[in-house]
Amino acid sequence: MRQSRKLSPRNGGVKPKEMRIISDSSEMQTLANRIRETDLLIGFVPTMGYLHEGHGSLIRGARQQSDIVVLSIFVNPTQFGPAEDLDKYPRDMERDKEIAREAGTDYIFYPEARDIYTSEFQTYVNVEKITKSHCGVSRPTHFRGVATVCTKLFNIVLPHWAFFGQKDYQQCAVIRRMVKDLNMNLEIIVLPTVREADGLAMSSRNVYLTPEERKQATCLYESLQLAKNMVRAGRTDARTILMAMREHIKRKPLASIDYVSIADTDTLQELETIRTEAVALLAVYFGKTRLIDNEILRVM
Amino acid sequence: MRQSRKLSPRNGGVKPKEMRIISDSSEMQTLANRIRETDLLIGFVPTMGYLHEGHGSLIRGARQQSDIVVLSIFVNPTQFGPAEDLDKYPRDMERDKEIAREAGTDYIFYPEARDIYTSEFQTYVNVEKITKSHCGVSRPTHFRGVATVCTKLFNIVLPHWAFFGQKDYQQCAVIRRMVKDLNMNLEIIVLPTVREADGLAMSSRNVYLTPEERKQATCLYESLQLAKNMVRAGRTDARTILMAMREHIKRKPLASIDYVSIADTDTLQELETIRTEAVALLAVYFGKTRLIDNEILRVM
Repeated sequence: MRQSRKLSPRNGGVKPKEMRIISDSSEMQTLANRIRETDLLIGFVPTMGYLHEGHGSLIRGARQQSDIVVLSIFVNPTQFGPAEDLDKYPRDMERDKEIAREAGTDYIFYPEARDIYTSEFQTYVNVEKITKSHCGVSRPTHFRGVATVCTKLFNIVLPHWAFFGQKDYQQCAVIRRMVKDLNMNLEIIVLPTVREADGLAMSSRNVYLTPEERKQATCLYESLQLAKNMVRAGRTDARTILMAMREHIKRKPLASIDYVSIADTDTLQELETIRTEAVALLAVYFGKTRLIDNEILRVM
Repeated sequence: MRQSRKLSPRNGGVKPKEMRIISDSSEMQTLANRIRETDLLIGFVPTMGYLHEGHGSLIRGARQQSDIVVLSIFVNPTQFGPAEDLDKYPRDMERDKEIAREAGTDYIFYPEARDIYTSEFQTYVNVEKITKSHCGVSRPTHFRGVATVCTKLFNIVLPHWAFFGQKDYQQCAVIRRMVKDLNMNLEIIVLPTVREADGLAMSSRNVYLTPEERKQATCLYESLQLAKNMVRAGRTDARTILMAMREHIKRKPLASIDYVSIADTDTLQELETIRTEAVALLAVYFGKTRLIDNEILRVM
């Protein structure tokens, strides 16, 4: 891993005194090329906005090891299915700016959809096997949209590294696979999930939950802890653990399971037996709101 | 267009005195990153080897406006269909090195297939509409392979510009579309088709032709000239021109038409009437050998 360098006179001009917002993709790419001609390292945090403490932690992670921190805010239409929540996805640009500034952002890249997807747009990045399972079952075009927009954002922002939260585990696995497969010139860094006091993983979508759903939503975290403790206690057969997880969730009347899975940490292939480590992943609906979470399981 | 800069002391070390061959993709990318930290401009010519004067012209084009010229030689398996000529695609590395050196190459990137496509490989770049017509009809996975390998090579070589020959017109249109759609950080430069004395477009595949097929193969160029002259003489209805082109080719008993088309120069959508300009494209089989060629048609 490269070390960030000190600002020197020949780096002048690309590090803004105050946080700047750039909405034009050509302007962003030109700036990124100028930064790349200096010694400065670019850390990148791609988001869909409506920032929370999870994003804050990614920005601070980027800040710590980069000279220039770029945050993108773009609610990406191609990763939403036709029946999904694109139109009502929560937005609050003023609060986002506050959080971004406080966490140490230098540039917010805030493009319009018609800039990112022109009328002639027709090129998609498809990661194949790893996108078919888990969230890919109920959201068949989701990861194609994620892979495509990340490719575009990486090419516009030209980061040395990009930061993602472990909460979106399959997304992280897909992006890592894509970066390797297409020899992309950056490093993917995954930071731990940030949680509310009761364990619920922070997510922009938590705002959709009714107070009663919000209470019951802790069952995702609890069932993951259950799995973790069972593995710690010596259980290695996935079927038994999955059954216990499902039973725990089913006790919550408002919860409806999409999937609960124990899988290989890289390929996400379903496991029958946990040898050294695995990942437990789950997606649970509360009404129309779909929550996801995951936990690494390690055999002691 | 940026101007190439003079070599300065801080650029030292990345411009080799003699042409170098690099086969490892990580080594190539690390070198490209080092070059990118200098002022030097990288010109890139991706090829499948078995170089001819057409490639020579691309290398000289790159040489003229770049400080560092990288040529890749890689017979890309993902752009060949199952019944195509991957295994017998002609190779002659010693002659390729000679031609590359004389035309002014600094680095040949010459990777192995297992380096470019590892066993876990599963990510493809799909350009959609523009790949469905013309060569995409008889070669349905061809452009997916081309787009994917070009994405990989661009990410490894990190060129400021990449050079392609107009002979592969649809390929050029697909790559341009991909570069725009995915905001790739480089410029695509298309140079004119280089031809034999009798008009046949240079191609590594010409070596497959029997002497009699070789003689009759001039019908591609001739029918394109016929089209060009008809448009010059005021003809603008595509159907009449296409009929004349087909008739000319059908006079050659060894020729079998795959397609003859008059299309929009950007989108490759079939045209009925030529308004200001169009491209005439054709693919013709001689035995198992498939030849392609094209010509821009301009209304005077």
